[in-house]
Amino acid sequence: MDVRAAVAHKAGAPLTIETVQLEGPRYGEVLVEIKATGLCHTDEFTRSGDDPEGLFPAILGHEGAGIVVDVGPGVTTLKKGDHVIPLYTPECRQCKFCLSQKTNLCQAIRATQGQGLMPDGSSRFTLNGEKVFHYMGTSTFANYTVVPEIALAKIREDAPFDKVCYIGCGVTTGIGAVINTAKVKPGDNVVVFGLGGIGLNVIQGARLAGANMIIGVDINPARRELAEKFGMTHFVNPKEVEGDLVPYLVHLTDGGADYSFECIGNVDVMRQALECCHKGWGESIIIGVAGAGKEISTRPFQLVTGRVWKGSAFGGARGRTDVPKIVDWYMEGKINIDDLITHVMPLEDINKGFDLMHSGESIRSVVVF
Amino acid sequence: MDVRAAVAHKAGAPLTIETVQLEGPRYGEVLVEIKATGLCHTDEFTRSGDDPEGLFPAILGHEGAGIVVDVGPGVTTLKKGDHVIPLYTPECRQCKFCLSQKTNLCQAIRATQGQGLMPDGSSRFTLNGEKVFHYMGTSTFANYTVVPEIALAKIREDAPFDKVCYIGCGVTTGIGAVINTAKVKPGDNVVVFGLGGIGLNVIQGARLAGANMIIGVDINPARRELAEKFGMTHFVNPKEVEGDLVPYLVHLTDGGADYSFECIGNVDVMRQALECCHKGWGESIIIGVAGAGKEISTRPFQLVTGRVWKGSAFGGARGRTDVPKIVDWYMEGKINIDDLITHVMPLEDINKGFDLMHSGESIRSVVVF
Repeated sequence: MDVRAAVAHKAGAPLTIETVQLEGPRYGEVLVEIKATGLCHTDEFTRSGDDPEGLFPAILGHEGAGIVVDVGPGVTTLKKGDHVIPLYTPECRQCKFCLSQKTNLCQAIRATQGQGLMPDGSSRFTLNGEKVFHYMGTSTFANYTVVPEIALAKIREDAPFDKVCYIGCGVTTGIGAVINTAKVKPGDNVVVFGLGGIGLNVIQGARLAGANMIIGVDINPARRELAEKFGMTHFVNPKEVEGDLVPYLVHLTDGGADYSFECIGNVDVMRQALECCHKGWGESIIIGVAGAGKEISTRPFQLVTGRVWKGSAFGGARGRTDVPKIVDWYMEGKINIDDLITHVMPLEDINKGFDLMHSGESIRSVVVF
Repeated sequence: MDVRAAVAHKAGAPLTIETVQLEGPRYGEVLVEIKATGLCHTDEFTRSGDDPEGLFPAILGHEGAGIVVDVGPGVTTLKKGDHVIPLYTPECRQCKFCLSQKTNLCQAIRATQGQGLMPDGSSRFTLNGEKVFHYMGTSTFANYTVVPEIALAKIREDAPFDKVCYIGCGVTTGIGAVINTAKVKPGDNVVVFGLGGIGLNVIQGARLAGANMIIGVDINPARRELAEKFGMTHFVNPKEVEGDLVPYLVHLTDGGADYSFECIGNVDVMRQALECCHKGWGESIIIGVAGAGKEISTRPFQLVTGRVWKGSAFGGARGRTDVPKIVDWYMEGKINIDDLITHVMPLEDINKGFDLMHSGESIRSVVVF
């Protein structure tokens, strides 16, 4: 079938809107009509050419929501008409990782997904007979896409696509890092570095978990008002702090953060985030994606005296199990997504969405089909 | 009173055996007759001058056992005749750290202990009228020493001093890192880097916890036999591994270690220890003390994909609560200390003990008074 998609032809080039050919779902696969998709920094990381593993030509996008229109043989948990969110981290419930109950990093289709292919090693997308790669197993920058059954979360039908698509990445990544990875408890003090889309979701996750101090750190004072709306109790602008930031934060929290979160992808900030943690028990969670080849460093004494360094991918969420719950939280008014979606546009304007990301004007842009 | 002590007069010099003057216990303090003391790498770290915070002249030693001979005013939990192990990590049970129940790093007397002084800011030791510093709050290289009540674990009276003194540091540090910090569970795969005294205690801790594979990594093949006696199931000599050590260990453990322990103090090995952990959940525990100014590094991707980097000090043990239990384990035959104490000597030969440490001939040397 013909589908309308934004195609990334080569690293660094703008996306081009084209009609590409999509083959129907094979065994264990599902055809989804994408109704809305967010634009995430990870898409831009690949589009720009910064991602050393980027493949071209490809159809990017991994933060979508839509409706099942067809299922391939062997599909048992989804049917035509189901509302779904594609999952770049699948949940097969059968691999060593899923069965460990200690991680959300299902490895069932990891190898082929990393190669831009479906689990059988082929692509469903072609353009003028030439193969076009899938991206993160989702390729939501197309009005139809094919996704493995294990990479689709079934959600309630009254949830608006143009809002809950954001749960496919940013919302879950931020809130999940607080709830699943850090396991913040009522009364904990939390420091959040970077008040972009992820950081704001960390903040509302910390509020949901009953945190005491929720300190936001950002060099952009324009983020303060929105962050306070999401639950931030203290704003720290590093540019306005006299002396070093780490002792300032340790003093502010009476000994250090119980949990800190790095939501930028800057390895120097990752070090600050660790070192502002409380001696004896403070844990720092890396969420941001650092540039290729970048390394984090600290003195081992920081860890020997009780700080813990960890990371979080997709908020530690098991997609098929947890994403429908987060959709419920949105529908019940427990979390705020509406204020984070600052721009909505048709597919034709997708490159403008990336421009808004670069200028810092948007928190999240969403494309509606 | 006159006491016999090994005095460290200056960085890098051998210890000298001298008669020093010891003042009796003040409020909250206890006079202990030291019956035996181990020689630890940390003593040597300070004696050699490598410790940037080392103070001289000082009476080193922090791995002792002895008998209470007098108590100062206000002491309620100990009396003359009690058998005790001094604790360089005290347990006041009242500070923010103790009450958190999340760390063993009691901070009640941290500041003065770090200055080589008793909690009231003075020293009990003098030599010809000149102040001699305490060390780690214990100063066990003397046949009598004064220690705060909160820094003494009361132990059973049938435990031999020349063995259980080792529980004052090395045994607890190794076994505790497994049980308290990592919380190894039956069936876990464990990799231990460095088969010295700490590493061997990590190994017997892992055996006690029911670990499945217990892999020891050391460039000294002479350590293999003893490590196997303590529970090591696989020995890896990095010098005999073709290619990189990390993928070798990941393959050997079918995906990586559930827990790894660095027992050397080498920051490059700390990185290997982290990176050989299992994707999704493997945790690496730093025990070894790195040289001043040394830093650990890795790619943040290692953490984002689920590995956890932490450290352990005194095995995460709360000394007054946990040390008596470990003494019981020794007396009940659950753990082996005898085979680790390879050399016993009088105080006069203490410098020979450090020579044996450097040559790698000893696991642990113990001075008996």
